[in-house]
Amino acid sequence: MQSVRTAVVGASGYSGQELLHYLARHPVFKLALVAAKSTAGQKLAQIVHGLPKDLAAMEIIDAAADYSLAQKAELFFLAVPHGMAAPYVVALREAGKMVVDLSADFRTTAPAVYKEFYDHDHPAPALLREAVYGIPEIHRDRLKSAKLIAAPGCFPTSIIVPLVPFLRYIQPSRIIVNSLSGASGAGRKVELRLLFGEITDNMYAYSVPKHRHLGEIEQELSLAAGEKVTITFTPHVVPMHRGMVSTIVADFERPLSSFPMTDSDVHQVLLEAYGSEPFVEVLPPGELPQARHVAHSNRIQVAARIDPRTNRLLLFSSLDNLGKGNASQAVQAANLACGLEEKLGLE
Amino acid sequence: MQSVRTAVVGASGYSGQELLHYLARHPVFKLALVAAKSTAGQKLAQIVHGLPKDLAAMEIIDAAADYSLAQKAELFFLAVPHGMAAPYVVALREAGKMVVDLSADFRTTAPAVYKEFYDHDHPAPALLREAVYGIPEIHRDRLKSAKLIAAPGCFPTSIIVPLVPFLRYIQPSRIIVNSLSGASGAGRKVELRLLFGEITDNMYAYSVPKHRHLGEIEQELSLAAGEKVTITFTPHVVPMHRGMVSTIVADFERPLSSFPMTDSDVHQVLLEAYGSEPFVEVLPPGELPQARHVAHSNRIQVAARIDPRTNRLLLFSSLDNLGKGNASQAVQAANLACGLEEKLGLE
Amino acid sequence: MQSVRTAVVGASGYSGQELLHYLARHPVFKLALVAAKSTAGQKLAQIVHGLPKDLAAMEIIDAAADYSLAQKAELFFLAVPHGMAAPYVVALREAGKMVVDLSADFRTTAPAVYKEFYDHDHPAPALLREAVYGIPEIHRDRLKSAKLIAAPGCFPTSIIVPLVPFLRYIQPSRIIVNSLSGASGAGRKVELRLLFGEITDNMYAYSVPKHRHLGEIEQELSLAAGEKVTITFTPHVVPMHRGMVSTIVADFERPLSSFPMTDSDVHQVLLEAYGSEPFVEVLPPGELPQARHVAHSNRIQVAARIDPRTNRLLLFSSLDNLGKGNASQAVQAANLACGLEEKLGLE
Amino acid sequence: MQSVRTAVVGASGYSGQELLHYLARHPVFKLALVAAKSTAGQKLAQIVHGLPKDLAAMEIIDAAADYSLAQKAELFFLAVPHGMAAPYVVALREAGKMVVDLSADFRTTAPAVYKEFYDHDHPAPALLREAVYGIPEIHRDRLKSAKLIAAPGCFPTSIIVPLVPFLRYIQPSRIIVNSLSGASGAGRKVELRLLFGEITDNMYAYSVPKHRHLGEIEQELSLAAGEKVTITFTPHVVPMHRGMVSTIVADFERPLSSFPMTDSDVHQVLLEAYGSEPFVEVLPPGELPQARHVAHSNRIQVAARIDPRTNRLLLFSSLDNLGKGNASQAVQAANLACGLEEKLGLE
Repeated sequence: MQSVRTAVVGASGYSGQELLHYLARHPVFKLALVAAKSTAGQKLAQIVHGLPKDLAAMEIIDAAADYSLAQKAELFFLAVPHGMAAPYVVALREAGKMVVDLSADFRTTAPAVYKEFYDHDHPAPALLREAVYGIPEIHRDRLKSAKLIAAPGCFPTSIIVPLVPFLRYIQPSRIIVNSLSGASGAGRKVELRLLFGEITDNMYAYSVPKHRHLGEIEQELSLAAGEKVTITFTPHVVPMHRGMVSTIVADFERPLSSFPMTDSDVHQVLLEAYGSEPFVEVLPPGELPQARHVAHSNRIQVAARIDPRTNRLLLFSSLDNLGKGNASQAVQAANLACGLEEKLGLE
Repeated sequence: MQSVRTAVVGASGYSGQELLHYLARHPVFKLALVAAKSTAGQKLAQIVHGLPKDLAAMEIIDAAADYSLAQKAELFFLAVPHGMAAPYVVALREAGKMVVDLSADFRTTAPAVYKEFYDHDHPAPALLREAVYGIPEIHRDRLKSAKLIAAPGCFPTSIIVPLVPFLRYIQPSRIIVNSLSGASGAGRKVELRLLFGEITDNMYAYSVPKHRHLGEIEQELSLAAGEKVTITFTPHVVPMHRGMVSTIVADFERPLSSFPMTDSDVHQVLLEAYGSEPFVEVLPPGELPQARHVAHSNRIQVAARIDPRTNRLLLFSSLDNLGKGNASQAVQAANLACGLEEKLGLE
Repeated sequence: MQSVRTAVVGASGYSGQELLHYLARHPVFKLALVAAKSTAGQKLAQIVHGLPKDLAAMEIIDAAADYSLAQKAELFFLAVPHGMAAPYVVALREAGKMVVDLSADFRTTAPAVYKEFYDHDHPAPALLREAVYGIPEIHRDRLKSAKLIAAPGCFPTSIIVPLVPFLRYIQPSRIIVNSLSGASGAGRKVELRLLFGEITDNMYAYSVPKHRHLGEIEQELSLAAGEKVTITFTPHVVPMHRGMVSTIVADFERPLSSFPMTDSDVHQVLLEAYGSEPFVEVLPPGELPQARHVAHSNRIQVAARIDPRTNRLLLFSSLDNLGKGNASQAVQAANLACGLEEKLGLE
Repeated sequence: MQSVRTAVVGASGYSGQELLHYLARHPVFKLALVAAKSTAGQKLAQIVHGLPKDLAAMEIIDAAADYSLAQKAELFFLAVPHGMAAPYVVALREAGKMVVDLSADFRTTAPAVYKEFYDHDHPAPALLREAVYGIPEIHRDRLKSAKLIAAPGCFPTSIIVPLVPFLRYIQPSRIIVNSLSGASGAGRKVELRLLFGEITDNMYAYSVPKHRHLGEIEQELSLAAGEKVTITFTPHVVPMHRGMVSTIVADFERPLSSFPMTDSDVHQVLLEAYGSEPFVEVLPPGELPQARHVAHSNRIQVAARIDPRTNRLLLFSSLDNLGKGNASQAVQAANLACGLEEKLGLE
């Protein structure tokens, strides 16, 4: 198979490092360029361990230098902080390059939603229409012809995947989501709140009631439901590095008694939706997702239960917030966009 | 002040050890007897570190030996596993002793609820009426004359305390609770699932949709509301030893617009309920509870927010699941029952 | 390449699970049989996550059933507790099978040393001579014709690999070793001391002054030195799951001033010994091994420094105690014994 | 008892916060002033949880403002970074105030040693003679009349306390020390290496062969031995917040056979030295120190063993690196200097 010259911009963070870990082993995407800010000048070996010698010796170039990097590769992964990706995307798309943006810059379709959640006008609204939201299990067909992929983060993936198959059965304004995130979800920022001494033996809810990623979550759920979906979303930080567990509670549209809907039925709904998906693990009835079971992988575990006492649906998911919740899912989406086998480099 | 001869039955677990830690420093409750099963024969120094020499040298007697221990103390704390407390309670109450039971055996008022959640008839239903549920902030008056205190665990405390002041404003069947518990909540049982290698870097929901403590939580909420309250409750294990965070989402009874209710108003509701409580920390608007802030203490942090987009109330709490969620709250309740200053030995 | 029918006996522990993780991806070793005790009857999917469907559905058979399992494979990995491997080894070697024993049963060459450290006679002393100690970097030639491989554990590997190249320069009775081990080094035993609540936020030295693996460490060092080597060895448990760091301090044989030996020289000694080894990472001067850098891999990091103030050599190593310290090194050794490329299935 | 107006300068770090935790409960030392840099302007409640209301409401003043703070208290604790304390000490001592400096600025008696380890001349060498090294178990008499206390950190305390009683029996140039430190030992600095994601699931040796605190350790050991003592010291970071374990290996001066010295004898040496010390816990033979057992306390656990195979002494200690290794020991020393009961506020 012909190799694809691949660039990573933004390699200093946890997402960038994880991405390099996957790309270093990818049989088609060949690293041609790695650019970063705080690790510029270092060898790749210093930020990703266990690489083959040629990759280990590659020098990280300065991401801020210039945008002429467009000439050096065909496929660009952007793992820069939110708000920093747009100028790269504009330049790279003008040069006709394929871009997978791991930031939030192109995830909201409507400029107004972007402004509501990010407090300023979108810097390149024309490109929003072109961007495809990068969950392959939801947007596989569109991803196959995508040139700009807006790779989602861990919260949206962990919520959208289990919920979408059930949107027809539940009330769109009665969905309560609680997500628990390992600290790597906040990135590798040098901030007091991210010190070991502040995270270990600690946990807390934060960014309520309107976390920045709420906009894209409701956008995708509404799109799938064909009607406006509104959720209450509470993210929490827990004392571990990688991993996410989401717990979703939703009111069924009709009384379970008249329906009827059993634990076996809701399991069946998941099986029908995802039974043939290579990276969605539908758990057998009685089992619930665990963060450990999907660590260092591109898999997401999902499970469904009913609560007959309250006529509610309970959904559960777990994923690695650096894997299926971020870097490896970006590779999965890029595989599709490049016409490759979807699982390439991910097993 | 005259001292009270105090006994602890069940000292091998995390609850028992934490209880001993508090009692060893209590100015009135004087340890006369410590009984246990798996640590019988050991010195107290081996299970609680940093004790004064006389306490350190006290030998733990065999809890299974006989019930003549009733003669040796006036106040008995039972920190034995659920289901094991009832025979002690019967014997000790017959002997006229004051009992604080940290197990779940006497927490449900109705025998039928006990049977629903524990799958067998209650072994001493006559005593259920006598038991007072041991949250001082809710049942202070009744605790002052209690002879049998059913000390609640961490989940009920973390849910009941923040919710009770809001029951008049919310719909009693639209309450969704997610709780995150440190692993010590499961006790010091030698089980595979509690090994370090199974808990670290892991988290998951469990016991859905009907955790054993759901019965007592709904009982207490219904009692406070004056009507039947039904909740959806999802407990989670997170990789830390001590600590609990609960996040509660509830639908307001009326539209917030017509109400009206603001962040400042819900904060005021908490202040009115708990502003003068020594162990309830009502957080200022903008702050959310953290597990670390209440570790090794008898305090509970609470905060309230509104979600105007969904017309919902958001409540948050944090406590130490071995402290206010268990052992130290039992001491607080016992202080009341013994006519002592409520804060004694707890600061 | 022709596949090798492979069996794993003892799959319930952390070693066994890690082994299965590596074997499931091995291009030549094909799992024909998995036997275990506490997980017998389960599907492989329940103990190793993310397997291909055919492997996931494989049922774990009862290890205790009979020894006729010899007929079902050519290559046997034994991941049973120390002391339990010998009967399997006897039966399998009689049947002419190749055996890789991850337990300590065949690591000591001299029956007397076995008895000194395990307090009973060796159950199959005749086979001790046949066993080859499974560190490929030290015994590569002998492993190529081995039929019985005694795969070493994490402590010996982390100590022997960095020390061997320096034995000619240091005093054989002046070597002090401190090792820090993640809790998985103790296995997946259901014991009180291994509970999350006992390990987290804790650390301690143990098994001093004569840990059970001291015998095999001194045996291998003495063999390499050509004279009796005696060390002081202090193992410690630290609150993490996988990982080991060893720190070795040894007196140089001659004064550094007359030698002379510099930081650059000791680095060169490591480079000469291991520069071309695929799984030994000789760190550049100034860097020290970190547990995180080798997690989930078959690599060992090593570094050397001099302490001119005290005329001593300082050696450092890190490895994954389930990887290079156990399961993956066993696969590396088996690759050699089967005439395969040494790196197969390990990158 | 008459209260002592007390000031804390430097309250933003882990040491400062721990100090405030102890001082808030001290019956004699009354907080009159808290100054800090990064938390200036905040209420005390924001950095120490669970304070009485009056203390909680105290505002942290700007430490950089001026040195007129000398007028506001009698006793000053300095918990500022190394190198920042000297100007405060000069001003405060000129004003006749008692100073307890938790930094390293006044721990080395000889200006030359300071220069060797800190690479610049000491800023106030005249005051070095006045400073008393603040380990009460070693310098109790001198502390009783001290005006300037150089409170030591965790490494020195964990090494000096167990070693001093044995200096007469061991070779002064044959002492190897390995220390494992929780991450709080590095302070609350906002640095990449201290992020949760860099510390969790990781460990490593660092600052070899000449850690900055080596100078003061050898100074104190030499002083106690009456001859030059030289050690090899390797510090390690382990993934926990608070706690330190040190393991010391030393060659006995004479052959154990001719001595003789048994496990019981070395235990007796510790008992004689520390049996009546309130904060030194000499462990019974067979037990080894654990970090958990001394967490949140001013205690240090010590144990001694012999290694007859190598004619060596093994010493072990554990302490809380924010407690006996830092803040609470500073309070213990201040108690002595103020003529108070040594245990005040520490139990």
